[in-house]
Amino acid sequence: MNTDSHPALLGSLNSTAPHSEVINFSPGPTSLPKAVEERIAGVFNQPGLTSLALSHRAPEFLEILDHAVMKAREVMEIPDDYDVLFTHGGGHGQFAALPLNLCHDQSDVATYVVNGTWSTRGVDEAKRYCQVHSIDGRDPKTGDFTHFPELTEENIDPNSKYVYLCSNETVNGIELHRLPKLPESLKHIPLVVDASSDFSTKPIDWHGSGVGVLFACASKNIGHPGLTMTVIRKDLLGEGKASPLCPGVFNYTTNSEAGNLWNTPATFNIEVVGFVMDWIEAQGGVYEIELRSIAKAVAIYDVIDSSNGFYGTPIENKALRSRMNVPFNIKGGDEEATNAFLIASWEKGMIGLRTLTPFGVGDYLRASLYNGVTVEEAQKLADFMRKFAAKHGA
Amino acid sequence: MNTDSHPALLGSLNSTAPHSEVINFSPGPTSLPKAVEERIAGVFNQPGLTSLALSHRAPEFLEILDHAVMKAREVMEIPDDYDVLFTHGGGHGQFAALPLNLCHDQSDVATYVVNGTWSTRGVDEAKRYCQVHSIDGRDPKTGDFTHFPELTEENIDPNSKYVYLCSNETVNGIELHRLPKLPESLKHIPLVVDASSDFSTKPIDWHGSGVGVLFACASKNIGHPGLTMTVIRKDLLGEGKASPLCPGVFNYTTNSEAGNLWNTPATFNIEVVGFVMDWIEAQGGVYEIELRSIAKAVAIYDVIDSSNGFYGTPIENKALRSRMNVPFNIKGGDEEATNAFLIASWEKGMIGLRTLTPFGVGDYLRASLYNGVTVEEAQKLADFMRKFAAKHGA
Repeated sequence: MNTDSHPALLGSLNSTAPHSEVINFSPGPTSLPKAVEERIAGVFNQPGLTSLALSHRAPEFLEILDHAVMKAREVMEIPDDYDVLFTHGGGHGQFAALPLNLCHDQSDVATYVVNGTWSTRGVDEAKRYCQVHSIDGRDPKTGDFTHFPELTEENIDPNSKYVYLCSNETVNGIELHRLPKLPESLKHIPLVVDASSDFSTKPIDWHGSGVGVLFACASKNIGHPGLTMTVIRKDLLGEGKASPLCPGVFNYTTNSEAGNLWNTPATFNIEVVGFVMDWIEAQGGVYEIELRSIAKAVAIYDVIDSSNGFYGTPIENKALRSRMNVPFNIKGGDEEATNAFLIASWEKGMIGLRTLTPFGVGDYLRASLYNGVTVEEAQKLADFMRKFAAKHGA
Repeated sequence: MNTDSHPALLGSLNSTAPHSEVINFSPGPTSLPKAVEERIAGVFNQPGLTSLALSHRAPEFLEILDHAVMKAREVMEIPDDYDVLFTHGGGHGQFAALPLNLCHDQSDVATYVVNGTWSTRGVDEAKRYCQVHSIDGRDPKTGDFTHFPELTEENIDPNSKYVYLCSNETVNGIELHRLPKLPESLKHIPLVVDASSDFSTKPIDWHGSGVGVLFACASKNIGHPGLTMTVIRKDLLGEGKASPLCPGVFNYTTNSEAGNLWNTPATFNIEVVGFVMDWIEAQGGVYEIELRSIAKAVAIYDVIDSSNGFYGTPIENKALRSRMNVPFNIKGGDEEATNAFLIASWEKGMIGLRTLTPFGVGDYLRASLYNGVTVEEAQKLADFMRKFAAKHGA
């Protein structure tokens, strides 16, 4: 076989390994925990309509919706002064929705921390609707995103309607394991968090961190694409607060007032979020999920750090390394070794380590370790990496 | 049992009838054709990943996406000079997306035909982004929406960037069985069609009707909520054409250039649209589906028209009566008779005839006859209606 056209190198997820041995390391959309996937499959074997066939006005769906909201509140300890919205358009929709809801005029200012691909995209959208003051997280020498800048009185515009950050940059491999606090004098400014890729994998100190809005597209840790969860502090809602330019589907206030039924929500996708929240509760809650996330990430980073340079990872500051997405290269990006790694791992059922994203960084592969990946599965990848390094000359 | 609290009166879809006898007349989201629902259930019994677990960048998903687009093109005879987009935010998202894509400035004009609930909502959104010139479809005496106004040189603003209409008003029961043509002198103006509730149930004369954009939320005839299909004539695309205020997720040009992958699309929902298009093809195509739609609607309207006033329906002009949604009342809206009807039909498995929508019109129930309802099932409702009328004094 010409290795150049090997499915593993084309990003195939259809490994030749037996299905039971497939481990999906995709950066999302990806697999959910097996118990959740079985519960979804089970829906189709029950009598009665599935949520796929339910009107969003039917009492049977309203129960599903209430359950998903209630369980998300419990699991993520969302205080009563926050509202839970199911929003449209993915994370990118929220990139526009945020300034359109929190800035009434285009002359309003918002501060953005730019430390990776997604916060950059957030700025691109925000610029249409407000004045963006940005805090650049690039390494001044290399131009790479390798750290998270300190938030100070000096670099935050005090007139900001909000301070925005992305708590896990999937492409760059930078994660804030706890949300930062704004300087005392600026604590009145709401923090806005893109938690698309780390929501539900660690606790959030909602009040302590001054969270105003936090959103998460569903397709990483909590469900399937077509749905985003947006949690908003209620004092930021209110008639006339959003820009007159805000599309109705993005308006937090009208969607909140309509109880998530301003228009037809993604009904089935909401049911699945409820299933994931049930699963987290059954595992012991979000603190237990965080322990597993740490264990999964440590397993992979340990192999990298002890490989004498056979594997590399871009983020040196271990306190900032993403638990969700571990970027790694092989022999400094050597093409032959990388392809051999991709093919051998793919044939063992380890898929999704390289997807054909336009956002990739250099020669880095990525092991994404969302809720759908178990500690044992991460360990299997770590074992494979160790053996591969031994065989190919670490 | 206190009939006031009977589940049928609360919009329950959980009828006590055996599952095999349940017929879902919901106005959407609702059931899909049984063969499609079985195919969806079958997905979960196959080895390998379902589309729910596929990265949108994986070649396996790109095949699913290409298939859905190709089959939609074939089935709906979409010409090559149109692009097929899968868009976010439902029909309401498109209410905003349209002016944001077709009007570069807020001073641009668009003409809206307002003949029901959804075209009214379309205007509400459009007003944020352009100057709306509207053609009122209300009956001047009653204020009700009962007809579709003629499109003339007199009532269309000749500077319009587009002329907008909703081809089926689900709440009001008005359907354009064929799209109207604009007056010869105004044929350069693109027609924009909200076909959310009738797309795929009849052929469309794309060029002949001068369609510029046509969109359909998936949750009536072609799939599940969380996805909308938008078909756009390519000359309306191009850099700089959209308003600078257009959110990226709503921008037709960037989404077209990115091949529907500008951001993560609703992957599973797209697979289901492909399934529905396969199903339509297997039935004999959209002309056959139209014949069935006519047969279903005729069955119900015939009972109404021959009931000596026991049943009423608001649209007198038979050429405009909706085949998709048949509104009907009982004894002029008599509460006791209506409740008796709802309970008796619900107990026979006929569900969704009244949902708790804020958009209802008076005392009208609605039989929605989308692709998920067979001719035989519509006939069953017609038979039930006939017997009910005989028993309750027609």
